[in-house]
Amino acid sequence: MPTVQPPNGTRDFYPTELARRRYIERAWREVSVQHGFDEIDGPTFEHSELYAVKSGEGILSELFMAFSGKDKDEKLRASLAEGRAPLALRPEFTPTLARMFAARAGELARPTRWFWQNSCFRAERPQRGRLREFLQWNCDILGDASPQADVEAIACCVGLLERLGLTPADVKVRYSHRTALGALITELGVDETHQDAAFVLLDRRDKLDNADIEAMAFEFGVHSVAFLNFLKRPRGRDSGTIDAALDSTPLEVRALATLLLAPLEAVGGELASAGLEAWCEVDLNVARGLAYYTGMVFEVHETGGAMRAVAGGGRYDKLIETFGGPATPAVGFGMGDVVLGLVLADRGLLPDDKSVRAALGLRPGAFVISNGTPEADALLTPTVSALRRAGVHARRSGKSTKNVGKLLKDAGDANARFALIIEGADEATLKDLDIGVQTKGPRGAQIDALKAALGA
Amino acid sequence: MPTVQPPNGTRDFYPTELARRRYIERAWREVSVQHGFDEIDGPTFEHSELYAVKSGEGILSELFMAFSGKDKDEKLRASLAEGRAPLALRPEFTPTLARMFAARAGELARPTRWFWQNSCFRAERPQRGRLREFLQWNCDILGDASPQADVEAIACCVGLLERLGLTPADVKVRYSHRTALGALITELGVDETHQDAAFVLLDRRDKLDNADIEAMAFEFGVHSVAFLNFLKRPRGRDSGTIDAALDSTPLEVRALATLLLAPLEAVGGELASAGLEAWCEVDLNVARGLAYYTGMVFEVHETGGAMRAVAGGGRYDKLIETFGGPATPAVGFGMGDVVLGLVLADRGLLPDDKSVRAALGLRPGAFVISNGTPEADALLTPTVSALRRAGVHARRSGKSTKNVGKLLKDAGDANARFALIIEGADEATLKDLDIGVQTKGPRGAQIDALKAALGA
Repeated sequence: MPTVQPPNGTRDFYPTELARRRYIERAWREVSVQHGFDEIDGPTFEHSELYAVKSGEGILSELFMAFSGKDKDEKLRASLAEGRAPLALRPEFTPTLARMFAARAGELARPTRWFWQNSCFRAERPQRGRLREFLQWNCDILGDASPQADVEAIACCVGLLERLGLTPADVKVRYSHRTALGALITELGVDETHQDAAFVLLDRRDKLDNADIEAMAFEFGVHSVAFLNFLKRPRGRDSGTIDAALDSTPLEVRALATLLLAPLEAVGGELASAGLEAWCEVDLNVARGLAYYTGMVFEVHETGGAMRAVAGGGRYDKLIETFGGPATPAVGFGMGDVVLGLVLADRGLLPDDKSVRAALGLRPGAFVISNGTPEADALLTPTVSALRRAGVHARRSGKSTKNVGKLLKDAGDANARFALIIEGADEATLKDLDIGVQTKGPRGAQIDALKAALGA
Repeated sequence: MPTVQPPNGTRDFYPTELARRRYIERAWREVSVQHGFDEIDGPTFEHSELYAVKSGEGILSELFMAFSGKDKDEKLRASLAEGRAPLALRPEFTPTLARMFAARAGELARPTRWFWQNSCFRAERPQRGRLREFLQWNCDILGDASPQADVEAIACCVGLLERLGLTPADVKVRYSHRTALGALITELGVDETHQDAAFVLLDRRDKLDNADIEAMAFEFGVHSVAFLNFLKRPRGRDSGTIDAALDSTPLEVRALATLLLAPLEAVGGELASAGLEAWCEVDLNVARGLAYYTGMVFEVHETGGAMRAVAGGGRYDKLIETFGGPATPAVGFGMGDVVLGLVLADRGLLPDDKSVRAALGLRPGAFVISNGTPEADALLTPTVSALRRAGVHARRSGKSTKNVGKLLKDAGDANARFALIIEGADEATLKDLDIGVQTKGPRGAQIDALKAALGA
C-alpha cells in the first residue's frame, strides 16, 4: 500500500473544501474584473534564475526546485548534487508578471491592469496560516505613476474585503511611503548601505521589544542614535491620521518627519476621494520586507485577535527595468487564501456548504426519480440525459431503492430545486422542493415546465 | 538582463489567451456540474512513489521531479545524484483521485461523482498538440459497476463537445471493451503474460502497416498467428456498429469474436437510451495504452483532418484497491486543453476575443468619462469608486486626453455597455453604446439609472 498522505503542507480539496476555495476565488475574480483588471497567467515553474533577480533572501531559501526526470545530462547532475535545479516552482507571481510585461512592453497599453490567481509554493515549515502550496491573488497597475493608481490598487483590495463581509472594524489598510521613509532614515543618519536593514528593523519593531530591536540594529550595523530613538518611540499603532503619525515621532526628529507629509497626503487625498478613509490608516511601521518597493506601501491587518496580515503591496517603479523592460512605474498587491480563510472563519463569514454551493450555482435544478414501474425505470436515463443536454443541472439517486419517499429525501439532501417523479410512460409529478407544491401531468409538459422554471 | 522566455513547453497567458482558456475551462466546469459531478482538487505535486504505483512506463519516464531547496540532507543529495527526487509534479490526476478516494472511502457516497480541472506536467518533447504544462479535465464515477455509469461518463464528455459547437460530423466517440478484448486475445492464443503487449499492438495498429506490426509483435514476443491475422485485418475504421465490427474480423476468429458481443451490446443499449448513438461507434482498435483499464474503454477522435485524439477514458475497477482503498468499480475520462483548442480553432469554433469576453461576463458595464471641467475631473474617482462598490464593472481611460470623442472611442474599444460622461458637478450624460442613444440628466439619477440597467 502506497503513501496515502498528501505531501506535508499541501491540501486535498474534497467537494466542501473546494467549494469554499472557489467561493474565495470567485470573489477575487469578480472584484478584479469590477475594478478594471484583466486576468493573466504564466507557467507553474520558471527558470530558477528568474527568482534570483529580485526575490528576497527569504523567498530564495524556500524555493521548491524542479527538473525534468528525462534529462540525464552531466551538468544537471552536477548542479543537483549541489542542491540547485534548472527550474523552480513559483514562490510568487511578480517575477513572471515582470517577465511577461517586459516581453511585450512595446505593445501593451499604459496603464496595463492585470490580475492573477493561482498556486504558489514555498518550502516553509508548515504552520497555522502558512502552507507549502497556497493560492494567491495579485492585482497590478503598470505604467501609471500617480497616487490615483496607488489608491486604485488599495480600492480593489478593499473591494474584496468588503465583498466578503469584512468591515473596517475587522481589518485596516495601514499605509506608509518607502521613498519618504527612506529620506527620513537618511536624515536620521543611516547611510545608504544600511537602508534595507533599516526597513527590516522598521518592519519588525512592532513584534519586538526595545532590547531586541537594539540587539538587531547592532547586528545589522545600524548605529544611528536618532534612528534608534525613532524605532523605540512608544509601541502600539500610530492612531492612523498623518498628523498623529508625525506626532508620535520623537521630538528631535519631528521636523525631519515632515518629509513624510507630502507623499502621504497625496495618497490620503486620493483615499478620501475614493471614499476609503474609514478603511485606511497611516502606519510608519509598514515598510514591507521586500527590497523592491519604491513608494507607497500598505498592509492589511486584522484590527484585533491575532493581528494577522491578510494582504500587502505597494509601488515598485524599478522592477520592470530589472527584468529587461522599459522604465515603468508600477503598483500592486497580493493576498493569499490561507490567512484570509482563517480570518473569515473566525468571524463566521464563511457561509455553510449549502449556501456556498447555491452562491456558486452548484445547486441541482432537477432530481429525477422513477416511481419504480418498469416503464418509468426505462425513462429515467433518457429523461436525465435530455434535461442535461438542455442545460439543466440534473441528478438522480445512486441508491437502488424504489421507495419514492427515500428518493425524495435524497433530492432534498442534494438541495435540488425540483424533483421530477416519472410515473409510468406518460405521466410525471413535478415537485417544487422549496415550497413543497407538486403537480401531476403529462411527462413532456412537465419537462417543459421544469425547463421553463429553470430558464433552460 | 535575465531570461525573458518562459520554460520550454509552457505558456504565457496574456488576457486574450487567458480568456480563451477560461472559456474552455468554464465549459468543462458547467458541463460537469450539469452532469452531477462535484469538483475536487489535490496538491500540484505528490510524493513521487504515488506515480510508481500504476502510471505507465511512458508517464514515469516523463515526470518533472521536485524537491525542497531548503532540505539539505544527505539522503536527498544521494537520490538527486541518481536523478530521483522525493516529489513529482502531477503528470495526471488519477493517482491523486485514487489516493483521496481511498483515504475517505468509508464516508463517501456510492456512487461518488468527481470532476477535476487543473494543470498537469510531462517532460515530453514539446510539439504541436503536446506541451510540458497543459490543462486537463477529468470526470470520474466511483462505486457504480453498471454500463449506465459507463455511459454517464461518455454522456458528460459528449455534453462538452456539443456545448462547444462540435457535432458527430467533427468528432466521434469510439468505444470498445477491455475485458471482452482480453478474452478474445486469450482465445486467439496470446498467453496471460503477453496481454498488455497485445493491447499495445491493438492500440498502435491503425498507425502502422502490416510489416511494422509484425516486427513489433516479434519484438514483444507475441507469436500467435491467429492474433496476428486479427491485427492484420483490413485497415480503416470499423464502420461503427457492433455487427460491422464483428464482420470485419477474419473468418477463422469470427466465432470467438462473439465474446465481445454481450459487453458491447450492454454499452450500446445504454448509449441509445441516452440518445448518444449518433456520437458513438464501436472500434475494436481502441484499447488504451494504460494497463489499469478493466472494462469499457473509449477515445474521442476527430473524424477527419489530423484524426487527433481529444479525450479518452474507460473503466478501471481495480485501481482504488491498488491505492489501499476498498474494491471499488470506477469509470472516468480525461480531456486536455491543447488538442481541444486546436480542433476548435481549425473549425472556427473559438469565438473572437470580444465574444469570449462577453460570454465570460468580462464586458465593462460602465466607462466613466469626465467632460474635462475641473468639477467633472474631481468627480471621476468618486464616481468610478461608487460604481465599483455597487458591483458595477467600471472602467475609465488611461489616457490623459480631455477630448470626449477620443474617450468615447476608448469606451467603444473596451466594449463597454454604457458610457457615463460627467458634465460638471451636477449633470451627466448616459450613453447606451449598443444602440447609441444618450440622455442628459442629474448625475445622481443617471448613476441610479445605470445601476438599474445593469442590475447592480
